[in-house]
Amino acid sequence: MLLNCDLGESYGSWRMGMDAHVMPHIDLANIACGFHGGDPLTLAETLALAREHGVAVGAHPAYPDLVGFGRRSMNLSREELIATLRYQIAALEGMAACAGIALDYVKPHGALYNDMMRDATIRDVVMTALAGFHRPLKLMLLATAAADAHREEATRHGIDLLFEAFADRRYDDNGHLLSRSESGAVHNRERMLEQVESLLQDRAVTTARGQRLTLEADTLCVHGDNEEGVRAIEAIRERVGKRRARA
Amino acid sequence: MLLNCDLGESYGSWRMGMDAHVMPHIDLANIACGFHGGDPLTLAETLALAREHGVAVGAHPAYPDLVGFGRRSMNLSREELIATLRYQIAALEGMAACAGIALDYVKPHGALYNDMMRDATIRDVVMTALAGFHRPLKLMLLATAAADAHREEATRHGIDLLFEAFADRRYDDNGHLLSRSESGAVHNRERMLEQVESLLQDRAVTTARGQRLTLEADTLCVHGDNEEGVRAIEAIRERVGKRRARA
Amino acid sequence: MLLNCDLGESYGSWRMGMDAHVMPHIDLANIACGFHGGDPLTLAETLALAREHGVAVGAHPAYPDLVGFGRRSMNLSREELIATLRYQIAALEGMAACAGIALDYVKPHGALYNDMMRDATIRDVVMTALAGFHRPLKLMLLATAAADAHREEATRHGIDLLFEAFADRRYDDNGHLLSRSESGAVHNRERMLEQVESLLQDRAVTTARGQRLTLEADTLCVHGDNEEGVRAIEAIRERVGKRRARA
Amino acid sequence: MLLNCDLGESYGSWRMGMDAHVMPHIDLANIACGFHGGDPLTLAETLALAREHGVAVGAHPAYPDLVGFGRRSMNLSREELIATLRYQIAALEGMAACAGIALDYVKPHGALYNDMMRDATIRDVVMTALAGFHRPLKLMLLATAAADAHREEATRHGIDLLFEAFADRRYDDNGHLLSRSESGAVHNRERMLEQVESLLQDRAVTTARGQRLTLEADTLCVHGDNEEGVRAIEAIRERVGKRRARA
Repeated sequence: MLLNCDLGESYGSWRMGMDAHVMPHIDLANIACGFHGGDPLTLAETLALAREHGVAVGAHPAYPDLVGFGRRSMNLSREELIATLRYQIAALEGMAACAGIALDYVKPHGALYNDMMRDATIRDVVMTALAGFHRPLKLMLLATAAADAHREEATRHGIDLLFEAFADRRYDDNGHLLSRSESGAVHNRERMLEQVESLLQDRAVTTARGQRLTLEADTLCVHGDNEEGVRAIEAIRERVGKRRARA
Repeated sequence: MLLNCDLGESYGSWRMGMDAHVMPHIDLANIACGFHGGDPLTLAETLALAREHGVAVGAHPAYPDLVGFGRRSMNLSREELIATLRYQIAALEGMAACAGIALDYVKPHGALYNDMMRDATIRDVVMTALAGFHRPLKLMLLATAAADAHREEATRHGIDLLFEAFADRRYDDNGHLLSRSESGAVHNRERMLEQVESLLQDRAVTTARGQRLTLEADTLCVHGDNEEGVRAIEAIRERVGKRRARA
Repeated sequence: MLLNCDLGESYGSWRMGMDAHVMPHIDLANIACGFHGGDPLTLAETLALAREHGVAVGAHPAYPDLVGFGRRSMNLSREELIATLRYQIAALEGMAACAGIALDYVKPHGALYNDMMRDATIRDVVMTALAGFHRPLKLMLLATAAADAHREEATRHGIDLLFEAFADRRYDDNGHLLSRSESGAVHNRERMLEQVESLLQDRAVTTARGQRLTLEADTLCVHGDNEEGVRAIEAIRERVGKRRARA
Repeated sequence: MLLNCDLGESYGSWRMGMDAHVMPHIDLANIACGFHGGDPLTLAETLALAREHGVAVGAHPAYPDLVGFGRRSMNLSREELIATLRYQIAALEGMAACAGIALDYVKPHGALYNDMMRDATIRDVVMTALAGFHRPLKLMLLATAAADAHREEATRHGIDLLFEAFADRRYDDNGHLLSRSESGAVHNRERMLEQVESLLQDRAVTTARGQRLTLEADTLCVHGDNEEGVRAIEAIRERVGKRRARA
């Protein structure tokens, strides 16, 4: 079970995330591409940090919404969204290549991620953007009850998927995350570690309504916003086991 | 003698340049990369147009100044400027690759171009950005009296140069362009065609002070902002000779 | 019947709209405030033009979406949207005051206008933003079958309304405009002038389904994007009658 | 002696400055206007905080450079700079008015401040922007050896000045601050309090070369970036004496 984390989301003089503390503990770095965070110098520095720690790198593209941090859905045309995704992915890919890193995957950010999980049309646009990219890139998305359908979609587009699960978030019976605004949506540390255990041992979680839901996850999403987050990552790391050396 | 032109400088709903009319007549398209113009969809459309007409493609990166169209000098740190250049070049390179085009060269835009021609430190930063790029890219710059020195700098960085000359602009004795604000800085059509002739026949121009200045130019910069510009391009094209089929 | 037009939507080097040709013929200028178009210098120049021609001025605020020209709905929180509106209105109001013009009204732009017409919650946020503004400003919105309900909402907020109608667009039975993507949504010149006539004589339009719909409009929205638009404005101006001298 | 501090420089999801901890201790809040920091909601919240603590408010406008935090000089035309300043000042002024606060003054930010202090042409543009603003606003600038000349310039423009001094920065003999890159440019806490003492008692500082330089300052600039900064503000506050109730 790999650990993935959103990184490189600082912008100019504004700092965000404890990237230097997080990088040693994770396997996959989802790096912002400049549209919701991540100015060019931040990208270069984050890529250098990823290489130093042998962490695999994915692009974390977003809607073009700096002031809203990519957290607001925007109705781009199909052509606009494809171009917007490829621009961001290409920018990161080329800068990664300059740092000697081959980009591995793409994980859409914020509202784009949510739209992709909720709306088959958006998912199709995202997969089309990746399928026509000049080199193969996996798509990271949420492991849900619809994972098989998502696999079929990906197969039609000729792309590979990485499924992620969340340690600290409560699930509904479809395998979607409860909204943060709902009570009990975010686990405390104890329950978070129980959910990690359950995902590792049984490849399943217990949903908000008490159902047992199987989730075949390749990777766990962790958060390094603050010191508490970094301590949670360290605890999850210990439970998951040592980082594999990167190929 | 190749013809190069700045293209892809529209942004969202704002249109700029008669790209579709220019593309059939040129050899090299300097495509905006999003920082002074050129939103992702415009990039994709401009690249498709370049491929349709077999035009070679270069990145046209700029200072991050949308409202100023990259025409104002900005004092970026060395690291910022390198990252800012590579981000833009990579974005265009990856999108070009998606369109089946290999990026050939880089021509800095606006104030960055002027800074590069005037200031050896900026030129060194630009060359460093290209030298460390993950694939070789030529640098297009102004053919001046200092061309030999520029060639030596490029050799030290291990990069190749493309020298450009201007058909419609008057030169000073150093081979720099007179500022547009000076009287006589921009040639009328007749003088423009004389200057083309002189560059083709003698590889030289007559400067504002009447000196004969040798300029070994690989390419002529032309402008497609309006119908008059397109007509000038057609006239220059006729004089220069048919476009070579692209390799 | 007053004529209103969206103006000041250029941005930096990108020009949009034939503002200088439109201004002499209209009564109300809806001026962009910088978030979908309208850089500060464009605002200053458009305000100077409005004063020269004695045209009343309204703010034309938008979602923060430059590349999308404010045409994409964005889910801002109530507090964000209020602040986003007031910022833009205040910027234009103060610059108008510098030009000796008192701001009269606010007309939301693009997706924000559509969201306001469709969604009572957004309309409430917009009215709240205006009601708490430090000086009274009218709200311009679409004259529809729900005009009475909108008047009641405005009364509760203590603000005044300006209702607008469209000369060149076909209506549905609720008084909403048919989407531009539907066939017959945009009138030709003849039908446009018939609709003007009908709005002036009968205060009504004939809907797409042939119904007669009463619309009590204070102002007609006209478009000055190109020469054809300017000629349409001149024709409508002639029909509506001479511009009143501004109070 | 009043204390002034730059506030409201967060942007969207990115936080900057300990504004809530600083506001109770200062007299004058220089509030960012959106061009180098300060999205509309941040402005609204910062203004509410200023009103809560009875702190007078000034606009803190900048060059349009979000990614560079307004710290890079940009060569705007005279007309652009005037419009850019008035737009930002107006935006803050109108939002302040909505919060029941009358804007008092303007303090240019970052590179614009430095350019204004160094270059009489820029100073003239800034003063022109304020002189033609629709209500009188004071200009805050650095108290230097040239203060008398600056007063004469202001008198010619018909505007009032507020002179500021720095507690924690070493001065050169002209009353300019040593660049932060020079050794000894930033005082430790002890020397900072000595400089406060000297400014209060003798209206003078000791320069880097050991000269005694008279500086007639109306206000001291303090910094609330972090906890150490807040503690320094508290110490300076104690030395300067209790905050005056705001008129």
